[in-house]
Amino acid sequence: MRILVNIAYQGSNFLGFQIQQHGRTVQQQFEKILKRMHKRHVRIHPSSRTDRGVHAMEQYFHFDTELDIAPKQWQYAMNSALPDDIYVKEVSIVDDDFHCRYDCVGKRYRYMVYQGAHRDVFMSGLKTYNDYDLDLDKMNQAAQQFIGTHDFTGFCSQKTEVESKERTLYQSEIIKTKNGFDYVVTGSGFLYNMVRVLVAFLIEVGKGKRSPDEVPGLLEAKDRNQVPFTAPAEGLYLEKIYLSPESLIQDFGSDIKIHRKKSLQND
Amino acid sequence: MRILVNIAYQGSNFLGFQIQQHGRTVQQQFEKILKRMHKRHVRIHPSSRTDRGVHAMEQYFHFDTELDIAPKQWQYAMNSALPDDIYVKEVSIVDDDFHCRYDCVGKRYRYMVYQGAHRDVFMSGLKTYNDYDLDLDKMNQAAQQFIGTHDFTGFCSQKTEVESKERTLYQSEIIKTKNGFDYVVTGSGFLYNMVRVLVAFLIEVGKGKRSPDEVPGLLEAKDRNQVPFTAPAEGLYLEKIYLSPESLIQDFGSDIKIHRKKSLQND
Repeated sequence: MRILVNIAYQGSNFLGFQIQQHGRTVQQQFEKILKRMHKRHVRIHPSSRTDRGVHAMEQYFHFDTELDIAPKQWQYAMNSALPDDIYVKEVSIVDDDFHCRYDCVGKRYRYMVYQGAHRDVFMSGLKTYNDYDLDLDKMNQAAQQFIGTHDFTGFCSQKTEVESKERTLYQSEIIKTKNGFDYVVTGSGFLYNMVRVLVAFLIEVGKGKRSPDEVPGLLEAKDRNQVPFTAPAEGLYLEKIYLSPESLIQDFGSDIKIHRKKSLQND
Repeated sequence: MRILVNIAYQGSNFLGFQIQQHGRTVQQQFEKILKRMHKRHVRIHPSSRTDRGVHAMEQYFHFDTELDIAPKQWQYAMNSALPDDIYVKEVSIVDDDFHCRYDCVGKRYRYMVYQGAHRDVFMSGLKTYNDYDLDLDKMNQAAQQFIGTHDFTGFCSQKTEVESKERTLYQSEIIKTKNGFDYVVTGSGFLYNMVRVLVAFLIEVGKGKRSPDEVPGLLEAKDRNQVPFTAPAEGLYLEKIYLSPESLIQDFGSDIKIHRKKSLQND
């Protein structure tokens, strides 16, 4: 039986999602609980492997089990054993051919920045601090130009090893908040560090050091050296996972290009 | 020259204020910076020694220095070297006979609780979760009865070693918030775990397991066994420090009883 789990986590005290030789990871927390319940190792398969310090308001993983436990009981059992910074929002039973990673057709990230004269220690790990006077309209103009299907080679880590660096963004916008702004981006998938590189670039636009007009040329250039900065992980939230083309069409219309994965990596 | 420093910190990743043999403390972070600047050990003296996981929106410490540095430069130097979860709000020069601990005549704490059907991982370490249906009016009735001068032996850790357990509370109230409530308490001083014991008792009142009418008897009994619970540290914030009788009178009127310390401990 295949079990689908919808979770949230506060990433500050994790080395990321994926299990590591040493250190606290989200995968490790779940596999420890599942091992205790199954008396054997049970591997979990996430929709996304978030990096160190990155949060998730929504993230999915699946695993296979022979245990006959109802979804509500799975949720209760896991939440009782989990630390305060992970929470199971929902558990369901899915078809055996469903796969969290291969069936994921889109994701939304939100990057939160707060501004002001002073750092706020209670935002530590949760939002990134910025004390520049930023032109949010210019930033939003630049953000909008990333919408569509592009090769994002110039906007990801040079360590990214994937066949194709073409991705489709359905949404890319700067939203003003009470104390700063959020950058919200929904796409077919994201390359390694891509959201953090986009945010760092948009902040340069906000400072007036770069211009929205440069975006087409930078996408064309495919040269990360022209976009050298990466924003810190702490303000980054995985906000939504699209597990079916229908859910993506519902939010962005039926004429969008949908990427079906079966081979993409680092997503 | 005596320097007074007003700071804030997010306590989640500290073992508390006071330096320990092993582990990360607030005192250690500052003494490390001051040692580098002075080329010798410089001891700092706080108004309050908060416990592991307890936060401070306001906390003071002083130290003596021979370095001729302007207050703004002290602030800048310290903030540049501090981690994200500590911030120096203000630095000033004070008289040599001023003492952060002995001149402290009052403190305000705020204990934050959030409620709802689900735990919120982004509140982890910042607010305490409670999913009971609590009677906030009853809790506030009970809270009000602690105002005044009482022996708080029944409402502190049995490990508390101080001459007198008499303290005066100037404010003690439950305030409804968007997702739960805050308990706000201002007093001449607080015994070890006192706020957390008061909160745990008030929550029992909210559940209907205890009654506001019991408060006078429990204060009289001076028996911690009758008040057995302690709320977790994570929701607790040191909110304000009163460094002069005038500041306390300004908030609570001129007919209040003011305790001047020179010998109290565990405050």
